[in-house]
Amino acid sequence: MSSSSIHIGLVLFPNVTQLDLTGPAEVFSRLPGAHVHLLWKDLDPVVTDRGMRILPTTRYDECPPLTVICVPGGSGQIELMSDQQTLNFLRKVAAGCQLITSVCTGSLILGAAGLLTGYRATSHWSSIDQLGLLGAEPVHARVVRDRDRLTGAGVTSGIDFALSVVALLAGEEVAQSIQLQMEYDPEPPFQAGSPRVAPPELVARTKENMSAFIERRRIATVQASNRL
Amino acid sequence: MSSSSIHIGLVLFPNVTQLDLTGPAEVFSRLPGAHVHLLWKDLDPVVTDRGMRILPTTRYDECPPLTVICVPGGSGQIELMSDQQTLNFLRKVAAGCQLITSVCTGSLILGAAGLLTGYRATSHWSSIDQLGLLGAEPVHARVVRDRDRLTGAGVTSGIDFALSVVALLAGEEVAQSIQLQMEYDPEPPFQAGSPRVAPPELVARTKENMSAFIERRRIATVQASNRL
Repeated sequence: MSSSSIHIGLVLFPNVTQLDLTGPAEVFSRLPGAHVHLLWKDLDPVVTDRGMRILPTTRYDECPPLTVICVPGGSGQIELMSDQQTLNFLRKVAAGCQLITSVCTGSLILGAAGLLTGYRATSHWSSIDQLGLLGAEPVHARVVRDRDRLTGAGVTSGIDFALSVVALLAGEEVAQSIQLQMEYDPEPPFQAGSPRVAPPELVARTKENMSAFIERRRIATVQASNRL
Repeated sequence: MSSSSIHIGLVLFPNVTQLDLTGPAEVFSRLPGAHVHLLWKDLDPVVTDRGMRILPTTRYDECPPLTVICVPGGSGQIELMSDQQTLNFLRKVAAGCQLITSVCTGSLILGAAGLLTGYRATSHWSSIDQLGLLGAEPVHARVVRDRDRLTGAGVTSGIDFALSVVALLAGEEVAQSIQLQMEYDPEPPFQAGSPRVAPPELVARTKENMSAFIERRRIATVQASNRL
């Protein structure tokens, strides 16, 4: 496949976590010749979960056949779990995709569309267990590939994830070139990026702060599971 | 300083590299009570260097006093080097800031505004030497702090940079909590994120591909230097 025939679509929904989308979009838009689509129901500005407003490029009903569909996460994911227009769109477009993918809690949306049943997948550390309710097998890893499904863990994992997607589509050299352009040689200032390495009291406090929200997400996941 | 009185401004200019801005914006917007402003001359959608369109929130002429000003990079940086409206705005707003900052080639814009004269600073690996033309001392590091100047290296360094800013403003615990929320526990798929570690032939090819653009940037830097 030549790069110029690669179409990559990212779902840009209200209350998406913008970095779940903008990290991979930065990587994908550097793949020579690839077309990146920001997909939504209409072309009005979408307000992300912390207020940044980004414009979609392509409506669901005008979306061309895609090479890759990518669903990011964020608090708006909960509403999408029961949004039949989005779930139908994902099922339809995924049927022609080479890779069906997600970042963060976008994997729960893929799961609600029935697209992860029987697949190993990952998600944000706070919600990865909910994948099991949707027929997927949760795997605690930063990027998980199972056949044509590629899922990334929370938020910033989208950069690692997207470089892996590019390597699959266009080869490791192209992915390495993009990594060099983006100076992706990370040096996190603290050891706090996952519950595995963060101070236990920080993990406990963060879980406590998120507990009501995670419970609301769980209810949506159970309801989606009942509809599968 | 309480978080609710923290105002952080990021310049959102045409042909900015969106991840230079969206990475730090994701971090800053998670600082409880902080106000994040995307600053430009007007409020029309700004087209970034690879086509994503993002809406500014705040015009230069209505910008409140800022705690932090942050200038990202990207190809549009070249035009900003001689944009007196932007350079004047930066000088004026910086006078009241606690931290004067940049990501990627945004440091060259700070330099063109005369805001890095006599300071150690960093930039994207491809252009860091140009800082010397603007009276700054180039330092090859991912995040460089010199007194109240904090500069990040290329593109993805903005995440490391922004966590460092939050630690300075609100303490390490708050920064660690944001790092955990964002699952920033990076696992780059390749050793290719800087010229120091990337395969030499990849570095040579990338430099060759960028050479005409870097030369155009250098001309703008020399012209800005002559105006200082």
